[in-house]
Amino acid sequence: MAVNLPLPVPEKLTAVAGIELGHAEAGIRKADRKDVLVMRLAPTATVTGVFTQNRFCAAPVQVCKEHLAARKADTPIRALVINTGNANAGTGEAGLAAAHATCAALADLLACDATQILPFSTGVILEPLPLDRLVAGLPQAISNLQSDNWYNAALSIMTTDTQPKAASRQVAINGQTITLTGISKGAGMIKPNMATMLGFMATDAKVAQPVLDHLVKQVADRSFNCITIDGDTSTNDSFIVIATGTAAVEVTAIDTPEYAALYDAVLGLSQELAQMIVRDGEGATKFITVTVEDGKDVEECRKIAYSIAHSPLVKTAFFASDPNLGRILAAIGYAGVDDLDVTKLNLYLDDVWVAKNGGRNPDYKEEDGQRVMQQSEITVRVKLARGSAAATIWTCDLSHEYVTINADYRS
Amino acid sequence: MAVNLPLPVPEKLTAVAGIELGHAEAGIRKADRKDVLVMRLAPTATVTGVFTQNRFCAAPVQVCKEHLAARKADTPIRALVINTGNANAGTGEAGLAAAHATCAALADLLACDATQILPFSTGVILEPLPLDRLVAGLPQAISNLQSDNWYNAALSIMTTDTQPKAASRQVAINGQTITLTGISKGAGMIKPNMATMLGFMATDAKVAQPVLDHLVKQVADRSFNCITIDGDTSTNDSFIVIATGTAAVEVTAIDTPEYAALYDAVLGLSQELAQMIVRDGEGATKFITVTVEDGKDVEECRKIAYSIAHSPLVKTAFFASDPNLGRILAAIGYAGVDDLDVTKLNLYLDDVWVAKNGGRNPDYKEEDGQRVMQQSEITVRVKLARGSAAATIWTCDLSHEYVTINADYRS
Repeated sequence: MAVNLPLPVPEKLTAVAGIELGHAEAGIRKADRKDVLVMRLAPTATVTGVFTQNRFCAAPVQVCKEHLAARKADTPIRALVINTGNANAGTGEAGLAAAHATCAALADLLACDATQILPFSTGVILEPLPLDRLVAGLPQAISNLQSDNWYNAALSIMTTDTQPKAASRQVAINGQTITLTGISKGAGMIKPNMATMLGFMATDAKVAQPVLDHLVKQVADRSFNCITIDGDTSTNDSFIVIATGTAAVEVTAIDTPEYAALYDAVLGLSQELAQMIVRDGEGATKFITVTVEDGKDVEECRKIAYSIAHSPLVKTAFFASDPNLGRILAAIGYAGVDDLDVTKLNLYLDDVWVAKNGGRNPDYKEEDGQRVMQQSEITVRVKLARGSAAATIWTCDLSHEYVTINADYRS
Repeated sequence: MAVNLPLPVPEKLTAVAGIELGHAEAGIRKADRKDVLVMRLAPTATVTGVFTQNRFCAAPVQVCKEHLAARKADTPIRALVINTGNANAGTGEAGLAAAHATCAALADLLACDATQILPFSTGVILEPLPLDRLVAGLPQAISNLQSDNWYNAALSIMTTDTQPKAASRQVAINGQTITLTGISKGAGMIKPNMATMLGFMATDAKVAQPVLDHLVKQVADRSFNCITIDGDTSTNDSFIVIATGTAAVEVTAIDTPEYAALYDAVLGLSQELAQMIVRDGEGATKFITVTVEDGKDVEECRKIAYSIAHSPLVKTAFFASDPNLGRILAAIGYAGVDDLDVTKLNLYLDDVWVAKNGGRNPDYKEEDGQRVMQQSEITVRVKLARGSAAATIWTCDLSHEYVTINADYRS
């Protein structure tokens, strides 16, 4: 039921020099399914990431943070290992030990230190990680390592996703071409807070560590942190950017034209990957852009946008193509902006002016609302008349299929 | 699909001296449906209420507040008028004029001032109130006025409710019996914030105005403000308590045994009526009690309880009777309690100890979780180990029927 989400074409996913990807069918939760991915990095690579703000952050997230903090110039991150089928979250000390053991096992095979490995998991929470099966799958993943394996990588991190999510782009900086390729997965439990469920992006540019750290935060706030499916912030959200440093382009500081060009490219690809997650949201039949403009600050614009995007009543109205648009006003009203003067508020659905100065626009006709609601892509635009800040959130509708998927997820 | 919600038996709803109720079929939205209710009060009655915190509060809510603020000893509130089928919200100046006109029309018929009338509406937002039909229905409602008409009153305020909600109780204070009878309606767009969608309660006790004002807030915070169906705070929430003053019992101050007895009775009945709303929540198949204990303060306990109660993933797991209880941990983790130490947290499902010190309880067995999940009434208990505060929220599951109802509500 994905909304206007074209299948990625394997041949159009460009390899990024300095990174190889290998997948395995380890039977973590189900047989005959790609469920383990190893990404091996060139020793020149810099790596950064942002992670879930959920207090129940999963064991692998904790280990990722630990290993990123501990790394030194002579012990760079050399590999990432990702499993689906089990989130290794809510698993206490045993879960931490399992995440460490995963790193140690892969480090043995790759002849590096366990702290040079970043582990990631996604799947069911509160169940012990089947460490034996995961470790047993690693040699198969390593035997598959190759640089043009992004399509299988995208397949390997899927859970309830109906389609793999991957994209590439190339951009010239100072006359040199750099390549960016990324993959993501999502589907449910999606309201990233500092990153999405899982997103990995690699470029062959050489990027200094502090620059990459700055870049990932700036990009996440304008891409993966602008999407929501059901408002459930996962325990395992991670967004990782890898710069392998094999290309001739070098980005050494933030206030440079090279940084600006790299930022544009990474942001564009990140927004594409983030929107893919929404387009393939569990049960999604509509892709909704919610833009709140003329606010006092970005925070209040985001509050109102999320309030609309999370309202089950608004989401079911979109599913039904029913212009029951008073539900949007109600969601704006309870967003928690206490001094909001609703008599100055205007609401648009694409080009249709629905509410004028807080009430129904006298010129609004139900058939105009109906026409827009029947589209598969809709923009809700709210103008607050309070200032000049704005925010945009991407979301999807709430359908029967969402309930079916989440009532059946483990079965 | 209501959960263990017995139909109210008309004969068991006790008349409250000093209040008469009259219903009408005014064709506000649909024909052949009780959709207007008038409640006429004795001149001795005191009235109080709490209302929605939604910034888009409906026109009738604004007029209620205005009339309650304006009343004087010689111009007490004499009647309430309630219509379904249209919320008169998001309707701007025209909506305010319509609410005022409704009061004026009823005041003419009852020979009092328009400011002595309180108006209420519930139904679709952003559509003009059909004032002519509402006013034309008032004589029929007045012709029906009688004190033993509570069952029809409960029927007249229903929207997507599948059952009328009404209850009575009697309590002795100082050897005198007082009567309490109340009605409520809910079903969807339910996360009351200072009151529920619509709740009306009457007693024949004589209660001083400041005492009644104190009582309604205290009770609402422990009843109607402890329920949620979909997290959507309505534009029209109102909870009204009427003390007709016809009985011999008088409550003049808060620090009296009379107040304590009245409080217990009003709270008990309010909790019953509030829980009825959850039991008849749109598509509800399970009644869920979420209790968060040992918190630093009530606010953080409520935050966590609402986070669990609003999570679409938790709600669909309840619908499926699937003990996918890691979803509860995730909802706790993103509740916004930033310094929460999850390694001290314990989670119980009824009598089953699921998570111990933040991880899966080694003694937890899936079949025990499964057994509880199959029940129609379930208690989720979270112990935070941070203090001695606690909060309880009542909610329901998220089913296919919820989507069906809200995708079809206006058709």
